[in-house]
Amino acid sequence: MSSKYPLAETNYKILPSINSPDDLKRLNIHELETLAGEIREFIIDTISKTGGHLGASLGVVELTLAVHYVFNAPKDKIIWDTGHQGYVHKIITGRRDVFHTIRQFRGISGFLKRSESIYDVFGAGHASTSISAALGIATARDFDGADYKVVAIIGDGAMTAGLAYEAMNNAGMMRKNLIVILNDNNMSISPNVWAVSKYFTDLIASAHYNKLKSFIWDLTGQLDGMGDRIRKLAARVEGGVKAIITPGMLFEALGFRYFGPVNGHNIAKLIKILNEIKNLNGPILVHVITQKGKGYKPAEEDEQKYHGVTPFDKITGKMYKSDKPQPPSYTKVFGEAVVQLAKRNNKIVGITAAMPEGTGLNILAKEIPERFFDVGIAEQHAVTFAAGLATEGYIPICAIYSTFLQRAFDQIIHDVALQHLHVIFAIDRAGLVGADGPTHHGAFDLSYLRLIPGMVIMAPKDESELRDMLYTATIYNKGPVAIRYPRGNGVGVPLKDDFDLIEIGKSEILKEGRDIAILAIGNMVYPALKSAEILQRYGIDAMVVNMRFVKPLDEKLLDMIFEKFNKVVTVEENTIRGGFGSAVLEYAASKGVVNVKFLIHGIPDEFIEHGTQPELWQMLKLDANGIAEKILETFEFDKVLIPQKTHS
Amino acid sequence: MSSKYPLAETNYKILPSINSPDDLKRLNIHELETLAGEIREFIIDTISKTGGHLGASLGVVELTLAVHYVFNAPKDKIIWDTGHQGYVHKIITGRRDVFHTIRQFRGISGFLKRSESIYDVFGAGHASTSISAALGIATARDFDGADYKVVAIIGDGAMTAGLAYEAMNNAGMMRKNLIVILNDNNMSISPNVWAVSKYFTDLIASAHYNKLKSFIWDLTGQLDGMGDRIRKLAARVEGGVKAIITPGMLFEALGFRYFGPVNGHNIAKLIKILNEIKNLNGPILVHVITQKGKGYKPAEEDEQKYHGVTPFDKITGKMYKSDKPQPPSYTKVFGEAVVQLAKRNNKIVGITAAMPEGTGLNILAKEIPERFFDVGIAEQHAVTFAAGLATEGYIPICAIYSTFLQRAFDQIIHDVALQHLHVIFAIDRAGLVGADGPTHHGAFDLSYLRLIPGMVIMAPKDESELRDMLYTATIYNKGPVAIRYPRGNGVGVPLKDDFDLIEIGKSEILKEGRDIAILAIGNMVYPALKSAEILQRYGIDAMVVNMRFVKPLDEKLLDMIFEKFNKVVTVEENTIRGGFGSAVLEYAASKGVVNVKFLIHGIPDEFIEHGTQPELWQMLKLDANGIAEKILETFEFDKVLIPQKTHS
Repeated sequence: MSSKYPLAETNYKILPSINSPDDLKRLNIHELETLAGEIREFIIDTISKTGGHLGASLGVVELTLAVHYVFNAPKDKIIWDTGHQGYVHKIITGRRDVFHTIRQFRGISGFLKRSESIYDVFGAGHASTSISAALGIATARDFDGADYKVVAIIGDGAMTAGLAYEAMNNAGMMRKNLIVILNDNNMSISPNVWAVSKYFTDLIASAHYNKLKSFIWDLTGQLDGMGDRIRKLAARVEGGVKAIITPGMLFEALGFRYFGPVNGHNIAKLIKILNEIKNLNGPILVHVITQKGKGYKPAEEDEQKYHGVTPFDKITGKMYKSDKPQPPSYTKVFGEAVVQLAKRNNKIVGITAAMPEGTGLNILAKEIPERFFDVGIAEQHAVTFAAGLATEGYIPICAIYSTFLQRAFDQIIHDVALQHLHVIFAIDRAGLVGADGPTHHGAFDLSYLRLIPGMVIMAPKDESELRDMLYTATIYNKGPVAIRYPRGNGVGVPLKDDFDLIEIGKSEILKEGRDIAILAIGNMVYPALKSAEILQRYGIDAMVVNMRFVKPLDEKLLDMIFEKFNKVVTVEENTIRGGFGSAVLEYAASKGVVNVKFLIHGIPDEFIEHGTQPELWQMLKLDANGIAEKILETFEFDKVLIPQKTHS
Repeated sequence: MSSKYPLAETNYKILPSINSPDDLKRLNIHELETLAGEIREFIIDTISKTGGHLGASLGVVELTLAVHYVFNAPKDKIIWDTGHQGYVHKIITGRRDVFHTIRQFRGISGFLKRSESIYDVFGAGHASTSISAALGIATARDFDGADYKVVAIIGDGAMTAGLAYEAMNNAGMMRKNLIVILNDNNMSISPNVWAVSKYFTDLIASAHYNKLKSFIWDLTGQLDGMGDRIRKLAARVEGGVKAIITPGMLFEALGFRYFGPVNGHNIAKLIKILNEIKNLNGPILVHVITQKGKGYKPAEEDEQKYHGVTPFDKITGKMYKSDKPQPPSYTKVFGEAVVQLAKRNNKIVGITAAMPEGTGLNILAKEIPERFFDVGIAEQHAVTFAAGLATEGYIPICAIYSTFLQRAFDQIIHDVALQHLHVIFAIDRAGLVGADGPTHHGAFDLSYLRLIPGMVIMAPKDESELRDMLYTATIYNKGPVAIRYPRGNGVGVPLKDDFDLIEIGKSEILKEGRDIAILAIGNMVYPALKSAEILQRYGIDAMVVNMRFVKPLDEKLLDMIFEKFNKVVTVEENTIRGGFGSAVLEYAASKGVVNVKFLIHGIPDEFIEHGTQPELWQMLKLDANGIAEKILETFEFDKVLIPQKTHS
């Protein structure tokens, strides 16, 4: 064991002996409870140093132990929905000693990942996929005549997504043996008072009900061998009574048998119920109530703050702050600009899909709550709902992360763009997001939006330009507008009090040059500018342009560029397939341009691992040095100018 | 009135006087019933000549009249989900006299369309968007302090989509005044025995229930002015009782008040219930039972056959057949190939999202029903369900139309491609689909799939190559494979009994040439080949390549092309933004190619209207003449070779 945070340092008694779920099965309830405490300690200790998703994992310690105690992974397939929940699972499935590398470059993933462990049955970064995947696996099992169990564990937030409903509906019809555990912490990523969630909260756990339930349970158990009619009648009576006093109605309407609610922090009870239901036939839903952050006071008290954390002081819960003051994040600048604009124009409304803090729309929620809408993990609906508002002259700002907006691709095309509706897409976390890795990188939006007719696509070079672009987007009213900007802090430029309108499709020349033209977009503009300084040292005089718009392109500028330069570089933090660079190539082709050599630089055509943004930029040559290096190599300046490369 | 099918020909008494919904309000029930009959006659008469979506429209004649009788459009907003239902609405909102142009080039759309009429509140081609849009509109109404009604009319099939659930859930939370009419014909596009649908079918319309319901209804009506507690209790009792004997459970769990079921062909009853509920507060669901094809025997008896029809004999119901024998459709060739392959390899399964006939998987459903899955209108789930099957070694063939696959974009990336799972996407209706128009054109798939790392993308030049590609896709097991092919008949080539493996990424040179290289993909290969014949007449010797693969590209071939030619044409039936042509440009750029002039030819960057495929190909210069013409213009061959153009 070569752990950076050796277990021995604290008094772990049981955890060191848990190398696979099999090791759990030797423990008694009391030992499992002790282990739960140790795992909490271990997670808090580790995540306080590395950062990560704290609250969700602390909430499922007992549930994870109970599931792995009752079921036999990897033979039984346990499918976690959204990796946030997966830390305990990782720790007890052989990854305890590498747990401190979580979310670090070349370390283990913060989410479930098939290539990482045989126990990770289905990768999960985006929410609500588990029931569909589980149903596929259960179907395969039955084809194979195998007899393992399939268990999906899904949060109540994830249950608000259409994908989960489609899967439940299909599962209810197919009647496969399938267990869905609803991990209900009534929070999802931020508190949403859903119809669905609300239902879960409206619990009536009366003695009367429990007695009745036991009776019916026994009855249906006995009836299992009997005719369909009696079973149906019993189920109908059970369903009817339950609907009055339990939250199972939704699931029973979809064809699931509902059990619960169960206290998700009582291991003994969890084990009991899982043992009771595990051999029942058909789709089963077990409703487990958990508390996010359970066992760590600061996280219990502020669930949102401790959902995803940076390193913090374990004792006080205070997150460490950088010594030097940081520029505000793009998210914060955006959130404040929305409020400022919404105060001037009462048609502006903000829409988020369960990410008020993450998108900065929490500021609007606080300042003008009636014009803020959190629709839950429901990106498709968010966009079509926005389209509805736009038909009546409202200006919806749909703030959705780049990776999650993929879920609403069809709605953007069919409900917004085709009808030329004025909806603004504020796309945070565009480009490489860092530690969340491949499931969360916003690597594709420039490409998947650019193919949509009539879509205006902008990307600001800094947080001040983000403000102007947002303002511009509210004024432009001929159709949809997308603004994409990166995760993290702005570059630290001063912010004006007011806004300036940017001409649609107009670029900005930041540096004149003779030898080569570098066309950069979004957060690649400053690195490109800096790369020009490096090139200057090699005697290369590069023009640098902040393109601002991927669609429409600044054609006048490009005409000039193709006239003046025979070496043109495009730089974007987006896949090089179909993105900004391709747009420039398409335009050049349409103008019959020849004799220009291009370097299309961006994210390569592969899924990019996790790591800090600077680590990934360096790896992909998307920082200033890397851009300069790519240019030197591609145009063979290095061979001409410097026999030995001085940086690689 | 200059109708091609003048009303006078038959004995229409009332229909000629209906020019807007206001005209309905002067009629009594008996006259409305007469009008319903006339509208049926008119629809059958027209659609028997033009073709179109017959069954759904015949099913909603009374419902449409009742809705427009009770509500006041355009002040009240009536939002039809999926345009199939919209014919009656079109006829009574001022489009009776242009109805015979439906789905014709330059005629009215077969779906709802905002630009066509003030009565078309929200465009609808794809299913399940209406509740989201309606909620957006209801929200705007309340901001504006307006008092109109918002009514969404959605089919039971559309209710299986996640988007509808997300919207219901959000509506249940927001408690806006909103009326959803569930048009339950228990069919969607083909019969699916959903958990949800099944529920609707399990109706118990007992006298006991109806008496109880009236009592509770009266009670809650009286209680409207009273305290919340009593109302809640009443609602709870009502909900509980109903859950035993009514299908409202699902909707009530989501926060809707449920009313129904109502006979959707009884105008008097429909009007009564709509009048009763129209002033109730909060989200209301009215469950209406209709019959597809109602009133036209052949359509009642074979609902699937008469869902969408070609011209037919009104008396016998027989669809006209072309005199000359037609080649089989791509759909049919695909469906038969699936069965042939599935018989050889028991790991192959077929998945459709409510389109068994449309995709040809009905043949698999018949031959090997246990390996056929219809998951309903649920493309997201279809793909993640396939991913689950693939983790266990199954080879799912997901057959989904190009335009509908947009709904599963995120699932393709996150659940399939990122995990390198071997899922086959069989993408029918790729390219221009004809009369269904802009909501249904498959204009984007090459672009939105090409940006996904590791995706293999093929397109066959004809139906025989489709067979070989499908076979190849089942053998290639390194990750996802997409095969896209057009709507309509194959080109009529002979079909082999067996299959040949195609080397991944290998193109096929169909004609050598000297002056220019035409690289074509999919159904543009034969037109390109024919365009080369035309060019030959102008003394231009064109090479023609069937590229077969958009990803990976045949790089060896391209290296040769760029070496040998300085004029290169790409032709695809896909948007020119980010598609096959862009892939070629990207590759050329990556190899530092200069001195080659490109023509990237495909669907322009705009939404394309409806019309027959040949009409659209001609309009967009995507037929052989058009391709030749584009080439002559672009490379200015016309100026050099022929002073006067002979074709334009």
